[in-house]
Amino acid sequence: MTEDKLTGYRGSLRKALESAGAEIGDRLEVTVNQQQYRGSLMPRVETYDDWHLIIKMVSGYNVGLAYNETMKINKVGTAPKPEFKQPPLPEAEKGLPKVSIISTGGTIASRVDYVTGGVISAMTSRDLLGIVPELVEVADVDADILYSVFSEDIGMEHWAGMAKRAYKKIKAGADGIIFTHGTDTMSYSSAAISFALQDLPCPVIFVGSQRSSDRPSSDNATNLMGGVYTAAHAPFAEVCIGLHENTSDESISYLRGTKVRKCHTSTRYAFQPVNDFPIARYKNGKIEMLNERYRPRQDSEPKLLNKFSDKATLIKFHPDYHPASLEYFLNEGFRGIIIEATGLGQVHQKLWPMVERARKDSVFVGIVSQCTWGRVNLNVYSHGRELVDRGAVPMEDMHGETAYVKLKWCLGQTEDLDEVKKLMRTNLVGEYNPRTPFLGRME
Amino acid sequence: MTEDKLTGYRGSLRKALESAGAEIGDRLEVTVNQQQYRGSLMPRVETYDDWHLIIKMVSGYNVGLAYNETMKINKVGTAPKPEFKQPPLPEAEKGLPKVSIISTGGTIASRVDYVTGGVISAMTSRDLLGIVPELVEVADVDADILYSVFSEDIGMEHWAGMAKRAYKKIKAGADGIIFTHGTDTMSYSSAAISFALQDLPCPVIFVGSQRSSDRPSSDNATNLMGGVYTAAHAPFAEVCIGLHENTSDESISYLRGTKVRKCHTSTRYAFQPVNDFPIARYKNGKIEMLNERYRPRQDSEPKLLNKFSDKATLIKFHPDYHPASLEYFLNEGFRGIIIEATGLGQVHQKLWPMVERARKDSVFVGIVSQCTWGRVNLNVYSHGRELVDRGAVPMEDMHGETAYVKLKWCLGQTEDLDEVKKLMRTNLVGEYNPRTPFLGRME
Repeated sequence: MTEDKLTGYRGSLRKALESAGAEIGDRLEVTVNQQQYRGSLMPRVETYDDWHLIIKMVSGYNVGLAYNETMKINKVGTAPKPEFKQPPLPEAEKGLPKVSIISTGGTIASRVDYVTGGVISAMTSRDLLGIVPELVEVADVDADILYSVFSEDIGMEHWAGMAKRAYKKIKAGADGIIFTHGTDTMSYSSAAISFALQDLPCPVIFVGSQRSSDRPSSDNATNLMGGVYTAAHAPFAEVCIGLHENTSDESISYLRGTKVRKCHTSTRYAFQPVNDFPIARYKNGKIEMLNERYRPRQDSEPKLLNKFSDKATLIKFHPDYHPASLEYFLNEGFRGIIIEATGLGQVHQKLWPMVERARKDSVFVGIVSQCTWGRVNLNVYSHGRELVDRGAVPMEDMHGETAYVKLKWCLGQTEDLDEVKKLMRTNLVGEYNPRTPFLGRME
Repeated sequence: MTEDKLTGYRGSLRKALESAGAEIGDRLEVTVNQQQYRGSLMPRVETYDDWHLIIKMVSGYNVGLAYNETMKINKVGTAPKPEFKQPPLPEAEKGLPKVSIISTGGTIASRVDYVTGGVISAMTSRDLLGIVPELVEVADVDADILYSVFSEDIGMEHWAGMAKRAYKKIKAGADGIIFTHGTDTMSYSSAAISFALQDLPCPVIFVGSQRSSDRPSSDNATNLMGGVYTAAHAPFAEVCIGLHENTSDESISYLRGTKVRKCHTSTRYAFQPVNDFPIARYKNGKIEMLNERYRPRQDSEPKLLNKFSDKATLIKFHPDYHPASLEYFLNEGFRGIIIEATGLGQVHQKLWPMVERARKDSVFVGIVSQCTWGRVNLNVYSHGRELVDRGAVPMEDMHGETAYVKLKWCLGQTEDLDEVKKLMRTNLVGEYNPRTPFLGRME
């Protein structure tokens, strides 16, 4: 692949940049609509339409300037070309811990298809080590490709396979596991593996990238390096997601696999904890623990519980929600439904008879909130109590994705509704945070 | 109603407080599990289970301490009792602007039912003025009860009625409109009124409360005062939501009705802007404009366009999503579907044939992201382009609730799918933000 010095730019904007002799990384002075901007030329990214010129200003912010014929571009300096910026590493040690990297696909393992301009998913584990050769200094790394799929196509069968592969690697002596995974459904998968692989002796870390791996600004090298170091050395033994904590290239936060949501389509720090603190932070080659509740690394026997049911669904309630569209799932023999209700857990009265029917049909109904943060409480308003009276179960501070994945898992473990209810209400792997430390939003 | 000096406390915790001679507002020193906490006793709130004692510490944070028999409570001071804290007001003026308050129900108009301990919805407009008599100094206020329902029961018929009532009030000379509304579905209703009442001459502000109105910490007086002042004096003419901006009692932010989401179940500053800046802030009796794009207050003729369709739905995609459950809506004659997809707008491949069938049936399919912030882009990944090829329409930076409400409105305006597509893609009332000023998350 030949290097493109104006990655992502096309058409007349590209020509204007070529005329100015500009390359990615150069310092530019751009005048448009009588305003002047100075900064370094950035590769074009998806967030903007392709007639936008992107520069990183001294403030550290990127700004997108819409191209028109009045735009003037002057090259005022040649900056060092952007490159992978890696956190400083400790000295290589002898007898390094073993870390297994299991690849499932996603942006961390994808490349731009220069024919269509889109991104396609394709990479070998050799490529992965080729991109970040320093990995071998941090841990005794092995890398396998388990799947090569976009994350939106990942479901319960992949979860079962992922849990099984990680289980085998741990039994074979791995001191930590890395899953590379597309970010779009990463928090569903991290929740699934949290339930499917219990009593962990070591960390299982999901790593991904919000940028294509061929781009200078790609965050995958940093995330992978930090992830491998943390998998090898961290004092916790839980499933978590580890991506950039903020706009800095230097700090990565590890968020509990059941308490995390992708909150932004495209920033590198898209993942935010939901009703929990991060477990840990990796920065400057050190791991800092941030949460007083965590499972310590230990010499335990992992349990593989990788059965899920296909008879669960997640619905988002909204005004004028048609009760018949909930009834559909009852008619089709579904065994469990998670309702993303409003606020503290309310739905309109027209839905109550369907909740009642679900109880008669022995179908589990769990209530979560469509508010990202906070805790459902069906005891505050009379309408909440009407739901409880009809058998609906409040999911406390669990958010929709985790409740849905947990329900699929519970229904995979037992046929008995009472047992499902009991499991759903039990805090198995930290999916419930019993304490809301402050009334304020946590993020 | 007799005043309860220990609002919300029950059982043995209440007895312990009584033994200490403590009342709400008193300064306490509490020792539990060998730790000591000092702060003012707060009324108990829904966020905590009822064996928690809540104190506000000097830091301003509330902390909930789980009661057990080892807990020691000492009263160390009597603080002034909490009361409604109101922003400072300008001097009363002559020829005050006219503001119409239209009540629809919700917590701002509810009281605790002391029999069940729950909150019931009931209040007259006289009660509203009774609670906040200062309203009459800020504007020439009239108040009507239009509906008295919990917000989860509000739907398109209420939206039609609300738009009509506000239209009549504006035509009769109102300089600003206030809707009091439960917060749970407030952002759906604010979007609906944005589309149903266009070419506004003045502000239309949704006001609510995250606390019951009988509680000393209630935020409804502040929100109502700020709302009425802003409705009367603000230089903008848009539909917006105005609640607390942060933990301070003094500042209220006004968020565009189509670009706002309730992000927390219970904090007072639960509402956050989605891909937009707040329009304005009210603080210390002044209005500060915060957004360069807004519709100015003007002498325009409002348009009432209050027809909505019942043949639209909103679904949240998730791993293992059953294609047949999307097909259900096609079989039932629905005319439009908003899919909350993952990340930049991806769904699994099994859903593609249903999107194809929707096109054949002339059913609109719009794609939004289940990430709260950011912008969908179906051109980045090949799977996105597969959706576009099958007729799916990316909703850019619009979030699910607004896209759903707008679709119901568009389908109420026209029978023609091409016209619906065109309307859905047109920025009518600021629901699209054409510029994403920074790559960072905005909140």
